[in-house]
Amino acid sequence: MPKEMLLCAFDMNCVGHQSQGLWRHPRDNSSEFNTMKYWQDLARTLERGLFDGIFLADVTGVYDVFGGTPDAALRAATQVPANDPFTIVPVMASVTENLCFGVTGSIPYEPPVSFARKISSLDHLTSGRMGWNIVTGYLDSAAKGVGAKQQTAHDTRYEIAAEYMEIVYRLWEQSWEEGAVLKDKETGVFTDPSKVHAIKHDGKYFKLEAVHLCEPSPQRTPVLFQAGSSDKGRAFAGAHAECVFIGGNSPEAQAIAVKKLRQEAVNNGRKPEDLKIFSVVTVIVAPTDKEAEEKLNDYKKYGDKKGALALLSGWTGMDLSKLDMDATIEQVESNAIQSALKSLGAATVGEWADALTIGGAGELLVGSPQAVADKLQHWFEVSGIDGFNLAYTVMPESVDSFVDMVVPELQKRGIYKTAYTNGTMRHKLFGEGARVSASHPAARYRA
Amino acid sequence: MPKEMLLCAFDMNCVGHQSQGLWRHPRDNSSEFNTMKYWQDLARTLERGLFDGIFLADVTGVYDVFGGTPDAALRAATQVPANDPFTIVPVMASVTENLCFGVTGSIPYEPPVSFARKISSLDHLTSGRMGWNIVTGYLDSAAKGVGAKQQTAHDTRYEIAAEYMEIVYRLWEQSWEEGAVLKDKETGVFTDPSKVHAIKHDGKYFKLEAVHLCEPSPQRTPVLFQAGSSDKGRAFAGAHAECVFIGGNSPEAQAIAVKKLRQEAVNNGRKPEDLKIFSVVTVIVAPTDKEAEEKLNDYKKYGDKKGALALLSGWTGMDLSKLDMDATIEQVESNAIQSALKSLGAATVGEWADALTIGGAGELLVGSPQAVADKLQHWFEVSGIDGFNLAYTVMPESVDSFVDMVVPELQKRGIYKTAYTNGTMRHKLFGEGARVSASHPAARYRA
Repeated sequence: MPKEMLLCAFDMNCVGHQSQGLWRHPRDNSSEFNTMKYWQDLARTLERGLFDGIFLADVTGVYDVFGGTPDAALRAATQVPANDPFTIVPVMASVTENLCFGVTGSIPYEPPVSFARKISSLDHLTSGRMGWNIVTGYLDSAAKGVGAKQQTAHDTRYEIAAEYMEIVYRLWEQSWEEGAVLKDKETGVFTDPSKVHAIKHDGKYFKLEAVHLCEPSPQRTPVLFQAGSSDKGRAFAGAHAECVFIGGNSPEAQAIAVKKLRQEAVNNGRKPEDLKIFSVVTVIVAPTDKEAEEKLNDYKKYGDKKGALALLSGWTGMDLSKLDMDATIEQVESNAIQSALKSLGAATVGEWADALTIGGAGELLVGSPQAVADKLQHWFEVSGIDGFNLAYTVMPESVDSFVDMVVPELQKRGIYKTAYTNGTMRHKLFGEGARVSASHPAARYRA
Repeated sequence: MPKEMLLCAFDMNCVGHQSQGLWRHPRDNSSEFNTMKYWQDLARTLERGLFDGIFLADVTGVYDVFGGTPDAALRAATQVPANDPFTIVPVMASVTENLCFGVTGSIPYEPPVSFARKISSLDHLTSGRMGWNIVTGYLDSAAKGVGAKQQTAHDTRYEIAAEYMEIVYRLWEQSWEEGAVLKDKETGVFTDPSKVHAIKHDGKYFKLEAVHLCEPSPQRTPVLFQAGSSDKGRAFAGAHAECVFIGGNSPEAQAIAVKKLRQEAVNNGRKPEDLKIFSVVTVIVAPTDKEAEEKLNDYKKYGDKKGALALLSGWTGMDLSKLDMDATIEQVESNAIQSALKSLGAATVGEWADALTIGGAGELLVGSPQAVADKLQHWFEVSGIDGFNLAYTVMPESVDSFVDMVVPELQKRGIYKTAYTNGTMRHKLFGEGARVSASHPAARYRA
């Protein structure tokens, strides 16, 4: 039996996540992201397509590197406005039974005790469908929101994150022993106090003493996601992550990244397959290749180049507003930008910015259901990843057409499930128990 | 036309909120508070009863004053386990259209920028049905959870709270001007950047610079609740609150408290009626007085005295575990406890603890629908309050029987609405616009 691919929707509680300007498309409804109905409809469609999960990205500041102001991002709705991603989890969970959630939570943004409680509360409400994408933050604007002058140095951020993880693991795994909750109506004992412990922590960055306020949720520790691509980030993923998101524009190059990641897991005493690795792609599908190309060209008419460059400026920390749109590859000073131009086959900066408006810097697959399935399957087999994280273009047709056209084609090939597995998110993804595996660092805090 | 009374359900994302031990009752389902269904069913019932809102209390630590440990609270499920109250708002909002939410958010527990964003996100999702109960915290155990040795001194807490309020008001009212969001598909301008401003704050307790990440929600500033009963607390309520919760066991005594509160509003340049004042009561109703008394006696069999005293120990900071249950009023050393014993008509500490198990220290009304309505109406008229905050006993029958029996009786008397008013929470409560009134301190940050 061939390996089945996993699928996540790559989304954010905002208008323009990866494809900037497409909110202008006549059929796009992403500017209704503030409403309950928008997320309920999306969740129902994803569950109809047997998606494993929806991954919610987040930023906790505005993209203000481009031109030194947030103006371009605001005009184009480039990840601003952006609402709290955790608030839409119960909305989507209330109309689904199997769809799981990978939600970005930024470590500098919330103290560990209240964060751990929020996650446990959501893991309860969703019957164990919660995942957490651990981020350490990358925007200075976000750091200023919590009173810092700029981002903490990159390596220090991972040091803080490691300490934060220890605290939340202890709250989730150690504060309430198995069997603490008795709910014994006869004896009148709801919780056996001898099995509940205050977590005392006195570290370099955090100091606290607290009983976790929630009884153990189905998974205790949520399924952990990570997307770090630096050495430190990869090491962190190897130690803590269960799911990893990676980007890339070639399955061959990605195969190397995948091997490195799995090696990091092994270096941390875990198995290579303890990591489920997802690659970000954007898909435009239509009944025929020709119609798909027409769809792409139609979408491009609405793309917002400045919005796309504002996004990329935030990611890279380089102010791309200074680039001349007519400049050719040879005229661009930065090597990083030169190689980006080359990889997208762009002749000028303007063409590059144009390409960025559809799916950002991620890989774009365009074609008939068969052609898209061919490409996904090839990518899947060559790269050694476990699945894809699908960015949207025009909402909701982007998701609708993938579910209606590509999913049946993948199922026909036997590389995509035809029914959900019951159980928690961790069980659905790894086929084992609801709790982190014995080799995971969170497991060492079990009583 | 007589004044109509407002009704809120007084609840918490936990098992035992005010009535300790009743989870043991054969018909009680409060130990299912971890599930989506529990809150959806409750929300539907409250909306059927035209309740104005559900008020969600919260604590961010355990009750460990009683005996110096959380053991009694854990055994009795006295406000522990207790999940994040904000996570159930979308659950209840998804099955209702008019029910509003007053949710407790503890100022030391979350940084202002992420808190303001969460509230705006929820105000969007609920179409303007969000309220926030401002608390400054009262448990040392909660303070330890954020790294402090104990509670900040009471007066300092209000100083911190005042600074926190200034920040969140500016994020909600000042960061995005009216008309900033254009969503103009023709020109491609989603947001006019000239109308969006970073909030810079450099104060005694907070320092930050941030653009609010959410576009203006229906109410911008949520409806503000407060429950402080100290002089500082009352002054804070007079300045900031739109709804105030008070306790008390006599409408005549409460009338004095109500006057003082309205005077504080006047002292702050506001109108007396700018405050909607709710009194906490617990109601046990049955078709006849006799059946209601039997219901009370049946409930009492399941009451947990130690759980009730653990709750009261946390509130008062006095370790009540040292009290002899057989001690009479005269034998008790504390004047505060003596007066509490007297007001409940208890002869001994044991009797007092017994009474506390049903509705805590709040007023308990027991009787037929007519008798309960008589008492509520009398209380309402004598005290000058605007409505009641109804604590539950056995769930869900406590709420079911109130909605089925008392609500029609109040409607018959013309003192309770027979249909909801459309619009936001603020509009429903005050009959005016969605935004804070011009005399409210948040209004001074409007552009």
